[in-house]
Amino acid sequence: MKTLAIAVLAIILQTSAFGQVQNYTQYVNPMIGTQRMGHTYPGATVPFGSVQLSPDTDEQPHNIGGKYNPETYRYCAGYQYDDTTIVGFSHTHFSGTGHSDLGDFLIMPTVGPLQLEPGDKKDPKSGFRSAFSHTTEVAEPDYYKVRLEDDGILAEMTTTTRVGFHQYTFPASDNAHIILDLMHGIYNYEDKNVWTYVRIVNDHTVAGFRQTNGWARTRTVYFAMEFSEPFVSYGYKEFGRQEYRGFWRKFDQNHNFPEMAGKQLRAYFDFKTTANEKVKIKFALSPVSAEGAIANLRSEIPTWDFDLVKRKGQAAWNRELSKIAITADSRDDMVNFYTAMYHTFISPIVYMDTDGRYKGIDQNIHKAAGWTNYTIFSLWDTYRALHPLFNIVQPSRNRDMVRSMMAHHDQSPEHMLPVWSHYANENWCMIGYHATSVVADAIVTGVLTGPEANKALDKAIETAHVGYYDGIGYYEKLGYVPEDKNSTSVSKTLEYAYDDFAIAQAAKKLGRTHVYNEFRKRSQNWRNLYDPSVGFMRPKDSSGNFLPKFDPLKTEGQGFIEGNAWNYSLYVPHDPDAMIAMMGGKQTFAAHLDELFTMHLPDSFFAATEDITRDGIIGGYIHGNEPAHHIAYLYNWTEAPWKTQERIRMILKMQYKATPDGLGGNDDCGQMSAWYILSALGFYPVAPASGQYALGSPAIRTATLHLENGRTLSIRAKDQSERNVYVKNVLINGRRLDRHYLTFRDIANGGSLVFEMVDKPT
Amino acid sequence: MKTLAIAVLAIILQTSAFGQVQNYTQYVNPMIGTQRMGHTYPGATVPFGSVQLSPDTDEQPHNIGGKYNPETYRYCAGYQYDDTTIVGFSHTHFSGTGHSDLGDFLIMPTVGPLQLEPGDKKDPKSGFRSAFSHTTEVAEPDYYKVRLEDDGILAEMTTTTRVGFHQYTFPASDNAHIILDLMHGIYNYEDKNVWTYVRIVNDHTVAGFRQTNGWARTRTVYFAMEFSEPFVSYGYKEFGRQEYRGFWRKFDQNHNFPEMAGKQLRAYFDFKTTANEKVKIKFALSPVSAEGAIANLRSEIPTWDFDLVKRKGQAAWNRELSKIAITADSRDDMVNFYTAMYHTFISPIVYMDTDGRYKGIDQNIHKAAGWTNYTIFSLWDTYRALHPLFNIVQPSRNRDMVRSMMAHHDQSPEHMLPVWSHYANENWCMIGYHATSVVADAIVTGVLTGPEANKALDKAIETAHVGYYDGIGYYEKLGYVPEDKNSTSVSKTLEYAYDDFAIAQAAKKLGRTHVYNEFRKRSQNWRNLYDPSVGFMRPKDSSGNFLPKFDPLKTEGQGFIEGNAWNYSLYVPHDPDAMIAMMGGKQTFAAHLDELFTMHLPDSFFAATEDITRDGIIGGYIHGNEPAHHIAYLYNWTEAPWKTQERIRMILKMQYKATPDGLGGNDDCGQMSAWYILSALGFYPVAPASGQYALGSPAIRTATLHLENGRTLSIRAKDQSERNVYVKNVLINGRRLDRHYLTFRDIANGGSLVFEMVDKPT
Repeated sequence: MKTLAIAVLAIILQTSAFGQVQNYTQYVNPMIGTQRMGHTYPGATVPFGSVQLSPDTDEQPHNIGGKYNPETYRYCAGYQYDDTTIVGFSHTHFSGTGHSDLGDFLIMPTVGPLQLEPGDKKDPKSGFRSAFSHTTEVAEPDYYKVRLEDDGILAEMTTTTRVGFHQYTFPASDNAHIILDLMHGIYNYEDKNVWTYVRIVNDHTVAGFRQTNGWARTRTVYFAMEFSEPFVSYGYKEFGRQEYRGFWRKFDQNHNFPEMAGKQLRAYFDFKTTANEKVKIKFALSPVSAEGAIANLRSEIPTWDFDLVKRKGQAAWNRELSKIAITADSRDDMVNFYTAMYHTFISPIVYMDTDGRYKGIDQNIHKAAGWTNYTIFSLWDTYRALHPLFNIVQPSRNRDMVRSMMAHHDQSPEHMLPVWSHYANENWCMIGYHATSVVADAIVTGVLTGPEANKALDKAIETAHVGYYDGIGYYEKLGYVPEDKNSTSVSKTLEYAYDDFAIAQAAKKLGRTHVYNEFRKRSQNWRNLYDPSVGFMRPKDSSGNFLPKFDPLKTEGQGFIEGNAWNYSLYVPHDPDAMIAMMGGKQTFAAHLDELFTMHLPDSFFAATEDITRDGIIGGYIHGNEPAHHIAYLYNWTEAPWKTQERIRMILKMQYKATPDGLGGNDDCGQMSAWYILSALGFYPVAPASGQYALGSPAIRTATLHLENGRTLSIRAKDQSERNVYVKNVLINGRRLDRHYLTFRDIANGGSLVFEMVDKPT
Repeated sequence: MKTLAIAVLAIILQTSAFGQVQNYTQYVNPMIGTQRMGHTYPGATVPFGSVQLSPDTDEQPHNIGGKYNPETYRYCAGYQYDDTTIVGFSHTHFSGTGHSDLGDFLIMPTVGPLQLEPGDKKDPKSGFRSAFSHTTEVAEPDYYKVRLEDDGILAEMTTTTRVGFHQYTFPASDNAHIILDLMHGIYNYEDKNVWTYVRIVNDHTVAGFRQTNGWARTRTVYFAMEFSEPFVSYGYKEFGRQEYRGFWRKFDQNHNFPEMAGKQLRAYFDFKTTANEKVKIKFALSPVSAEGAIANLRSEIPTWDFDLVKRKGQAAWNRELSKIAITADSRDDMVNFYTAMYHTFISPIVYMDTDGRYKGIDQNIHKAAGWTNYTIFSLWDTYRALHPLFNIVQPSRNRDMVRSMMAHHDQSPEHMLPVWSHYANENWCMIGYHATSVVADAIVTGVLTGPEANKALDKAIETAHVGYYDGIGYYEKLGYVPEDKNSTSVSKTLEYAYDDFAIAQAAKKLGRTHVYNEFRKRSQNWRNLYDPSVGFMRPKDSSGNFLPKFDPLKTEGQGFIEGNAWNYSLYVPHDPDAMIAMMGGKQTFAAHLDELFTMHLPDSFFAATEDITRDGIIGGYIHGNEPAHHIAYLYNWTEAPWKTQERIRMILKMQYKATPDGLGGNDDCGQMSAWYILSALGFYPVAPASGQYALGSPAIRTATLHLENGRTLSIRAKDQSERNVYVKNVLINGRRLDRHYLTFRDIANGGSLVFEMVDKPT
């Protein structure tokens, strides 16, 4: 009896540790960002889950007739809200990326004559794709439902970390099918499929793999697929070129033959169904082997109880969402906030089997002992706000993400921390060595400590010294990347300089003075590219001369990437004071920022600039892409911090809406959403690893942060309203704050944080 | 001291167990079979070694302009004796096959300007290939040497089970290279390479894999490559189509960048050499991972002592060769015999890492605990004589080969024993389910016993019941394979019937009467296709009618494969008496055999018949292909066994010569050579699993078989000579034998076997 009492007490304490248990999933709308350029997906996934089981509404090839197909970009997450047909449900999706990959293992239920081509979206009956309507569609955390109109099949799905659970309610049919399309993919090149393999394990289980050469150059995903009932028959068709390969044509190997392999396969499984019969499928993934996928399947979903799995998945979401419990002025604010939370807790994803084994970037199998391996590191985006947010509300996971990066370093041929890494591959997307910032922020915040912190710092230092990588050799020699040797050189120089600051901060924290001095010095390199004659950062050649032609509005060929001189020149997050001084002092600088936020951009700008649309722009300020994310906070370093407060509220309002088209740009694996969450709470890490969080203007009424250290930070925006966007005072535990930033300790120590909101600048 | 004395004694006993230690490797000439159609290779390998490191003299694509290139066939083993250039040295080769694959990881040393194309064989200086001459060439067991004339480089190679050891003696050069060609292969289709991957591990070590879609549909070989000195620089070129794939072109990744991947790569490593400097390479293979290859490399060759590795490899060969110690009339006879021994001990090959891990046919990684996993099962060939020979002189290995087949069954999607299997793939080449014969022979001979024997029999039975495989369903229903449903139906029916006999024999041995009865009955199915009106076996349709057109000389379209009705109709090895009775009795049958051995074949025959050349033919008897291998022994069942003796000696003399062109047909993974060994010893297993070995005419003077059970069988051909080919008497342990066969016990019990040879039939 005593034992029971203690157990009950423990449960109560555990529950109370997260405050009153509320249903935060009700505020999540996975449809937000699925229209236009948010590039999110509406399907089912658990927090940081390996499986993202989601409908794909079209299949756009990357190239048509050897030329890039611009439609591809819209389908980075497989789903576009304006579409009226669904091709099927695939198991892997990036959330919010601006380039893509994945879309593995498309499943589609059909009845009637077998169709193995997806067909035309204007005539869905021409293939296995089906018409659908948003009126029958339900998208919740870890649950997605839709009626497939063509054949009258109700599709439902939920997931665990490694297993997708499908439930299809069929009409009566002697000719029902489940199609397993191994050709389907996102950003599909003609020969993206390197190899696919399917093995019939028994009369209701299938396993195999898909190997691709896409954004990830050498990628294999293994799967296991278990049906709730035996299939009546099965087979496949090879849609690729099949030359003579030995003796594979000797007898019928396309029908009821238990091994299938090739580059372009679509398999099918036949059933006989009664009216309203539910055919269920558990579909597990593994980075290691088909055997691993089978083990994942059996250990994560031992039953056929769909509702139980759904309930558990939604409970897991609620646990994560309740880490920040807010109240706000409107339901839309609640929806924006918790959908942002949802989007920040989607990736990086768990990337290992239940036994800890995973594929390393050396293509060998490794085992994570005592930690969780993650993949999908979109670091040029996520070092800014997502990982700093994790250090506040997900420190254990972020520690394991850093460990994953450390393992990546050890296993990578280059001995570098990741740049943009997914599924045991480095895709080298974008610039910088921002994993160093993530490592440094973890060290500076105390999330990573002891010998492990020193090892992580060593790997950061080694990364920053890889001379052949993207101009680092020149950067080390000249103090900047010369545009004639390596393009987009200004962006690289500025970001390397910030990353060097981050390394210096970590070294300082760990008492490694020599390293601190070296990287503190390197972090000054941004100074080498400022041209006072034009008032912008500007590319130099390797002789030290500024390139003659220069247009601060343009990006292409101007020394920048995904941002022009207007935005990028402000990228000295680690030393705004020095930057402002160099740019003419506080007053001049504030006027310069004002001009940025109010300027009118010509139409030609949008035509020529990659990854930026009108949606994400305020004046000349580009919120839809990351290099500007800190800019609105820079007013804090002038005499007019109130302008930060005003701009932040304006950005929150204009760039985030509780509608499918509500995101002003790609969510970028949660970076845009993390910006929202932190800004809505009233602070933002302008320079991660600085230990400082610039104050803004909170958009919530109250927020309670339930920290892993057991403490609670209660935030209150007193007199909050749409007009009261200015902060008169900030009180920490009742004491007035006389600075424009919080420290990590201010947050992590918990307590009370009160913003006194007023309707005029003070 | 006592312990030492015992140890010394143990060594002496161990040595004496194999008789006097002689150098049998001196009689091995790996060049035999390298000219014309023997399809053997001259390079280095240890007994049953995973690595076959051998020169490839040309690289013939399988297709040219979409059409089959007939030159391909000559290069099944990569080397043709008449060629005058070497492209390089690759690590995997089949021995004697009539279809091919492999040729992985070609290494070529060069000096001077880097050439990454092999160039024209008529102008070897046009590429990295080199002229060579047989005068500088040395081919010994586990050692190959040649001078590469173009650049004056001496190439030497030796191996361990899993590691190739290269030693290149360079001239002085500032510009020396080792090329690692990942495009090269044997039976190379344009898109045979599915993927290749190379990782620089450190300044002198490289690892990765090659994945192909060839005869093996889904095949990956991993490698690790260690140089004896650091490379100065390195790089690669992609020869395949390389579309945009993310960000791989952002900075120079073709030179000194430590990761390479693609479908058509050639990598190179640069060195500076002094005159006569030896650059050595250890090149390990693994079926599991690059990590596994590195572990294999380190455990098998811890030093850089080339001569030590060579000595060990040759000592291993000598141990295997001395299992049958013979004396013979001439050095040529010795060379023929020991080269045949050499060729029988090449494959199946060990297929697992040193830790026992291997890739199963389910594409998962498995571990062989307490046994050795083998691959390369050319069973249509080797069930006849090779595996029966192994049951005599390699029972432990053969037991493990059967275990490998059992694992194959368990892991195969079809739950079948292998048909023609290599490298975790079933290529379904040729016909039958002859693994059942290998299993049965192992059971009947007592090589496989107890519960394991019963399990093996279960798997054989299951295999024989797989209805969708190659006409088995019809065979079970109709008692024969109908030609209108499944071509080459007579060959299949006859071979299934024999395989069924083998299963019955194993069942009998294990006391499983029900199984015995079932398969004994099935084994009579050969009777269903004999047409007394023509005196041959002949195809029927599914209604039970013989097909109207029939030509007993032709193969194509006549119901046969790789053999015509003249040869194939005699394929009832398990019941010659019944077959002879059906064909008209002993006298008629003997005359029929005489006609076969003396008939004249028209030229048109050779043009139309696959895999058979004039070399392998005596009259209409086709020794160059397997279906006829038992035929000469069938005279034993007539009144004229002396004709068996005469024919056997004629075949031994005509079909096996101690010259590069000495083999009358493909050696077929040792089957042709096993026929030689057994026939030269005086007996042959007409029906494996019968426990009987038909007597022939021994071609040796004396032979001592050192059996694993510790016993010794001493064979003496008394009065042996070229004229004394007839056997007057056979004495076992001094007792006259009154039958025309030996039993397995006669052999395995050891003792004395004397053939009294005379110059006239008796």
